[in-house]
Amino acid sequence: MNITIIGLGLIGGSMAIALKAGKICHHITGVDSNTLHCEQALQLGLVDETATLGAGIAIADLIIIAIPVDKISEILPGVLDLVKMQVVMDVGSTKSVICAQVTEHSNRKRFVASHPMWGTEFSGPAAAVKAAFKNKAAVICNKNESAKDALEMVENVYRTLDMHLIYMNAEEHDVHAAYVSHVSHITSFALANTVLAKEKEDDKIFELASGGFESTVRLAKSNPLMWVPILQQNRENVLDVLNEHISQLNKFKSCLENENYEYLTTLIQEANTIRKILK
Amino acid sequence: MNITIIGLGLIGGSMAIALKAGKICHHITGVDSNTLHCEQALQLGLVDETATLGAGIAIADLIIIAIPVDKISEILPGVLDLVKMQVVMDVGSTKSVICAQVTEHSNRKRFVASHPMWGTEFSGPAAAVKAAFKNKAAVICNKNESAKDALEMVENVYRTLDMHLIYMNAEEHDVHAAYVSHVSHITSFALANTVLAKEKEDDKIFELASGGFESTVRLAKSNPLMWVPILQQNRENVLDVLNEHISQLNKFKSCLENENYEYLTTLIQEANTIRKILK
Repeated sequence: MNITIIGLGLIGGSMAIALKAGKICHHITGVDSNTLHCEQALQLGLVDETATLGAGIAIADLIIIAIPVDKISEILPGVLDLVKMQVVMDVGSTKSVICAQVTEHSNRKRFVASHPMWGTEFSGPAAAVKAAFKNKAAVICNKNESAKDALEMVENVYRTLDMHLIYMNAEEHDVHAAYVSHVSHITSFALANTVLAKEKEDDKIFELASGGFESTVRLAKSNPLMWVPILQQNRENVLDVLNEHISQLNKFKSCLENENYEYLTTLIQEANTIRKILK
Repeated sequence: MNITIIGLGLIGGSMAIALKAGKICHHITGVDSNTLHCEQALQLGLVDETATLGAGIAIADLIIIAIPVDKISEILPGVLDLVKMQVVMDVGSTKSVICAQVTEHSNRKRFVASHPMWGTEFSGPAAAVKAAFKNKAAVICNKNESAKDALEMVENVYRTLDMHLIYMNAEEHDVHAAYVSHVSHITSFALANTVLAKEKEDDKIFELASGGFESTVRLAKSNPLMWVPILQQNRENVLDVLNEHISQLNKFKSCLENENYEYLTTLIQEANTIRKILK
């Protein structure tokens, strides 16, 4: 099988490594508008060759689109215009806008909308890592809108990455993703900005930064070129969850203001039940 | 040297392991009001024997108090009443209230106020780990209030744990700790409660939880018996930082409400500068 990956960043690059290692394909073509990324991907051995979008599509059995979600929405209809029996999958962090973009497309059945739930705060081909997706969830959305053979090919890709498959519709995915991923990023960005604002008057503030700080703020290093489009496309869900999160924070604030340590204990005990999810 | 550790939990237990390994002492006595913790600490080989508070103090050259900060404030004056030439150190996450408690004590010079900046979300003797404190910061507060030999002994303890020493006054410590530790815990607790509230109507919400969620919510497993007293003792600083954090979150909210994606990009780029701190 020939695979063409559009977008040679963290996700595209890491998929290239895993798909080669999983022997699912013998040839990977890379497409990226950033020529530096193309060169790096070749040097790092992520892809066998690079090509233009049109040539990359023509040569492929499977086309994986791994670029920011605004760019996926932009190019997906044009990519589907060019395919015949090939399969096209995206790996974007939002699904509703992307799916809506091609609902009426005559080649809709060749497309499988998906989201592998893995990432790091780093970007670019040099950020690609081995065994990246292992044991994480991969979501496939609106599977009934895809042809059976297309769906099976994409399922096979995710099994090769050692991921477990979850099926839901695009709207449901976007609500869930707002809760378990998108708002985590906003809290991290906001926490980083809180401490960075303080640093302007107090240059020793970071001397005490410990593991707890690092883990809550790690995501604040994430790239705005990826994240602004995600937050834009999932704006309504993210706003709902952000409002809920701010109201939860205000409960902690009221407890401290009113010195209600009994209720503060209750709030923390409730939070502790997250143990049933996170080992 | 004989060391007595009061409190055989995560911190006390991990210190016992490291101090034994660092050959700084030949005998460690454990004191804990929880008899189960005493038994576990003996079984795990964290301590050589357990004793009552009075006996533990009498036998020791150095007494390490590693219990929740409200309990430190409670017992510290009584512990200092009992010492002669021994050294007493605490490892609590707040410093102002604890230091204020003993400012006028006749044995104040035998006490060194400190805070090793390390922890995990787990507690109890079984949570104790090897090499726990390595390469982290240890803060010593109000060092001029301690006798030279007492200070040197505590500095030696932290060097044995491979920590680097930072000196500041107790008030300064508490402001810094609010920024880089205490508010991180509140955001984690609040984020856990946000998602747990949603789970009541949507039992599949956690299927998508990925690494990003795990890292921002990890601290939500932390024990209220430890954290309520910290937030209580550092209430004013925590409220200041929490207000600032909520106002930073509201900036992200306004950007989404007003679809101001340019300013959203700026906010994320600002947050990205945290890279200079977190590698």
